[in-house]
Amino acid sequence: MLVNGEPEDRVPVSDRGFQYGDGLFETIAVREGEPVRWERHLARLGLGCERLGIPPPDARVLREEARRLSHGRERAVLKLVYTRGPSPRGYAPPVSPTPTRALIVSEWPSHRASPPEEGVAVCLCRQRLAANARLAGIKHLNRLEQILARAEWRDEYAEGLMLNARGDIVDGTMSNVFAVLDDVLVTPEIVDCGVAGVMRNLVLQRAAALGIPCRVRALALVDLRRAHEIFLTNSVIGVLPVGRFEERAVAVGAVTRALRRAIAEDDNDVARRA
Amino acid sequence: MLVNGEPEDRVPVSDRGFQYGDGLFETIAVREGEPVRWERHLARLGLGCERLGIPPPDARVLREEARRLSHGRERAVLKLVYTRGPSPRGYAPPVSPTPTRALIVSEWPSHRASPPEEGVAVCLCRQRLAANARLAGIKHLNRLEQILARAEWRDEYAEGLMLNARGDIVDGTMSNVFAVLDDVLVTPEIVDCGVAGVMRNLVLQRAAALGIPCRVRALALVDLRRAHEIFLTNSVIGVLPVGRFEERAVAVGAVTRALRRAIAEDDNDVARRA
Repeated sequence: MLVNGEPEDRVPVSDRGFQYGDGLFETIAVREGEPVRWERHLARLGLGCERLGIPPPDARVLREEARRLSHGRERAVLKLVYTRGPSPRGYAPPVSPTPTRALIVSEWPSHRASPPEEGVAVCLCRQRLAANARLAGIKHLNRLEQILARAEWRDEYAEGLMLNARGDIVDGTMSNVFAVLDDVLVTPEIVDCGVAGVMRNLVLQRAAALGIPCRVRALALVDLRRAHEIFLTNSVIGVLPVGRFEERAVAVGAVTRALRRAIAEDDNDVARRA
Repeated sequence: MLVNGEPEDRVPVSDRGFQYGDGLFETIAVREGEPVRWERHLARLGLGCERLGIPPPDARVLREEARRLSHGRERAVLKLVYTRGPSPRGYAPPVSPTPTRALIVSEWPSHRASPPEEGVAVCLCRQRLAANARLAGIKHLNRLEQILARAEWRDEYAEGLMLNARGDIVDGTMSNVFAVLDDVLVTPEIVDCGVAGVMRNLVLQRAAALGIPCRVRALALVDLRRAHEIFLTNSVIGVLPVGRFEERAVAVGAVTRALRRAIAEDDNDVARRA
């Protein structure tokens, strides 16, 4: 673990991350000693900094620290937390903040290594996502909605999907969701809530390259309930096929398999370049 | 500063307060060496614990720690942060969490000691409050909406008021708001966003005791714009008269003065008992 470049596992109580959730994070896969898709993660972190008015990190320093922690690890997960830093009491952001960066490397989750051939089971969460356009898309530290949603099940599901106030599907607690509907790949637009995942964007690009018709639009619950294929994405799970949504079985189809293969190849390219 | 009862100014990076804003807080006035209205603050903290599914603190231990920090201070502010504690990576709440309690005592804000006779200036924030009934009323650590709102001004206003998605007034970034409309005292209902302040509840009780007609209901922006009196409340400012809302001057009237006096007397009772 590194805090502001030093081996350290604690932060000040006065840090605005601890006081208010005033910051951002990234969860990054590590392969062959290298953080994977670093530039994409850094770009989203930069967007978050812009939205929250936090000075962006020094990209060179952060990269060096990320590599230092990743070094020698074949597979791992690197989490980067970036906050507005410490401040006196009160919501007013300091005029000249000194942001805190914390990097934590942890074991690759073994149960993710080989998901079941028939896909994972996914539920629908009762907890919904509230609308706030300024916070949508970015990976900020205000995560109580996701925690309340995740508390709705234990291990019987791999993920839970969340609705917005209008009752449309937005994303999972820790992943984005794609569905194949009438031969078109659909993923919910991230407009007033939800996270625009790095893997989501990569999958959209690979789908386009493979000539798979693709649309980013509102996704009604009734549409997901009749989807021919469903899969989840994030930087750790890659493309994860869904075999059951609520009580209904879903087949792992050709589109899911093609994109899972494309992302695995992309992963290998990254590892080969490292 | 005390963390889990020990003199300490840092918390683990793995604390869910830092990782997700997964916790609660209270801001408590200290007078004559005693935390003021302790039972009321503890009751709200308990409600928050229930909503988030965090085991409540040991009330006796917490009280003892609060008194230890307050001891010998004539006037101060005590902030209590209570989180779900450390956990491995992931939103899933630990089955047996070990919550973190951090108590921070700080100087009484001197500019609050004697607010201007003619009342303070208050603006309307562009940032709105999103609807989440489970998080409404409690003082949780997901405070990005308040921070974005507070970043809209520097020192030209004492507070900014926030609207919900429907465009009704909810509260200030760090206070509740009351208005006198046609001889009735009105404060917004806290249903799907906003904090139900300890001082707000006390003011409602004192108003009832003084025979002031009072209603808790939706408060439209147009109503606040024609209010005869406006005041703010929280545990540090007590009852703070508003002298200007947006560009319009507001008189400091009889209802505001009566309630400000009632709360000041209540404060003195508390100090006398100490």
